[in-house]
Order: sequence, then C-alpha cells, then structure tokens
Amino acid sequence: MEYYEKTLEEVNGYKGRILSLDVRTVELPNGKIAKREIIKHPGAVAILAYKTDDTIILVEQFRNPIEKTILELPAGKLEPGEDAETCGRRELEEETGYKAKKFTYLGKIATTPGFCDEYIDIYKAEQLYDGNIGGDEDEFIKVCEVQVDKIKEMIKKGEIIDAKTISAFMMI
Amino acid sequence: MEYYEKTLEEVNGYKGRILSLDVRTVELPNGKIAKREIIKHPGAVAILAYKTDDTIILVEQFRNPIEKTILELPAGKLEPGEDAETCGRRELEEETGYKAKKFTYLGKIATTPGFCDEYIDIYKAEQLYDGNIGGDEDEFIKVCEVQVDKIKEMIKKGEIIDAKTISAFMMI
Repeated sequence: MEYYEKTLEEVNGYKGRILSLDVRTVELPNGKIAKREIIKHPGAVAILAYKTDDTIILVEQFRNPIEKTILELPAGKLEPGEDAETCGRRELEEETGYKAKKFTYLGKIATTPGFCDEYIDIYKAEQLYDGNIGGDEDEFIKVCEVQVDKIKEMIKKGEIIDAKTISAFMMI
Repeated sequence: MEYYEKTLEEVNGYKGRILSLDVRTVELPNGKIAKREIIKHPGAVAILAYKTDDTIILVEQFRNPIEKTILELPAGKLEPGEDAETCGRRELEEETGYKAKKFTYLGKIATTPGFCDEYIDIYKAEQLYDGNIGGDEDEFIKVCEVQVDKIKEMIKKGEIIDAKTISAFMMI
C-alpha cells in the first residue's frame, strides 16, 4: 500500500534566514486534493561525544521556542555546501572546545517528518582533546559531563527531553 | 549559567492552517540583539501500543516533507482544547482501529527545540481490542506488527528513522 502524493503546486509562504515555509497542493491516491504546510530546514548534525568510556558530554542551553534551558547533545545546522562530518567536528569544537581523534557515523533521524524536511546525522566522537577555538560569543552554552549509565533514568524522569539526544542512545 | 533571552518583539511571518512562523527579536545576555525564527505547532501525541507482550504496532505512511514512506508510532496532533490522553486514544483508534484498556503516560519529548515549540506526549497502550471507527479516508496508512526485540536493530539499520518512534523506546 505504499503510495505517493502527487505535488500539483508549491507556493512559498515565508522565506526566512534559516527556515522557509512552503504550501504544497497535493493529489491523494483517492483523487482528492489536500494542502501540506512544509518547513524547509538545512539539516543538522549531533555528536555523542565520549569524554571517557562511561561519560558523555551534554550541553545546556536556553531554547527560545520552548522558553526552557535544556540538556542536549552538542549539535548544529549544516552550513551551505558543508558535509555532515565537517559540520559535526566544527560544532563539537565550537560548543564544547573539544576535537576528536575518532569520529564514527551512527545514523540519521527525521525529527518531524509530518511537517519538516529536517534530518539530523548523528556521530559518535571518541578520544577527545582540546581544540583551538572557543565558543561562538553569541552562544551561551554550559558544557556538562554525564555518566552514560544515568541517561535512561534522566530520560524517564524528564530531565532529558530533546528528541535527537534521546534518539542517539538507541543507536549505540 | 542559566540565562534567559529577553523577547523585545514578536512578529508573525506566516499563519497557516496548522503551523505558524513567528520572528522574535531577542536581547542576549551580552546585550546583543538577535532574531529567532520560531515555528508554532499545536503539539502531538504518540502511542507505543503493545499488541502482545513482545510485539508493538507501527504505522507505515508517506511523509510529504521528506518524500518517503516511513515506519512510525501511531500519532497525531492535538485538536484545540483536547487533552493528551484523549488525543492519544483517538489517534490510536483512527490510525490502527484499536482501543486500549490500559493507557499509561511515559513522558514527553521536544522534537526540535531549536526552532519549534512542538512537544509530543508519549503513551504506552496495552490490552488492545477492536474499536468502532475506521481510519480517516484521507489518511493512507498501513498497520504493521513488529517484534520489540527487533526495534534496536531496525533503528541501527536505518529502517526506523522517525525521532518520536526511536525516542519512545528509551522510555520503556
């Protein structure tokens, strides 16, 4: 029963600096016409960085859309033309100050496939060492070290609510 | 180092049927001014429904934004004024045909806290029985039964990429 919605028209509703919103008119398999509001996102990379064999690095930052300070994997958006690993290594260093000798691809997630085209590629970073660059001066980020065997409990208690962060732990 | 971005102005960039996009002008802790593009979403509910002790129900559907047919937990958006459990029970029945005698709250995720305010509440549904209503005629969904002990392997192979679906398995 796999099927395809045929796109009849796509109209840009809003074009922003990072996001844009398009409205697609599509034909359903039963011939009916429907509208789809779709957010276009450049895509992102998140890094599960091991400080030691049993501790990983999370960053705490204020997230304006939900008006909360939350714990997340270091992560960031792809720059135009940037490949995922370069982005991941750059974001890891910018957000945490660390470089990694070993950088392994774990997989990708579709964060909100119902309304947005964003994929996040997730990497595992190991054998960390101090990098040369500090954080972006307009990013306010606290770097935390968390024991891997505490993660599941933190998720169950609602101390980690970020979907990419939670998802990464199903990939190891 | 917890901090708050002070919102100076919020301007609506686009108002759609489901989504809207606002642009916030905020003051950072260092006094600088920044813009934030924020998607407003009504929120959603996803259901980890056990058909038996070791099989769960996933739905396969075409997702227009990523132009792919993918496997996900049954899920759907909150209607205006609807509470999460009512939404979850409604979506489970609409998408799979099942009702559940036991419905347990597992937790919530922020799907994309960097640019969207969406939360998804996740419930566990057990002791399923046939409901009265069929699916929405404009939804084209295939109901699948999957062994719980296969899930991690499916995630690692990229056969399950949906973030809410992956996240739910860290809550059980």
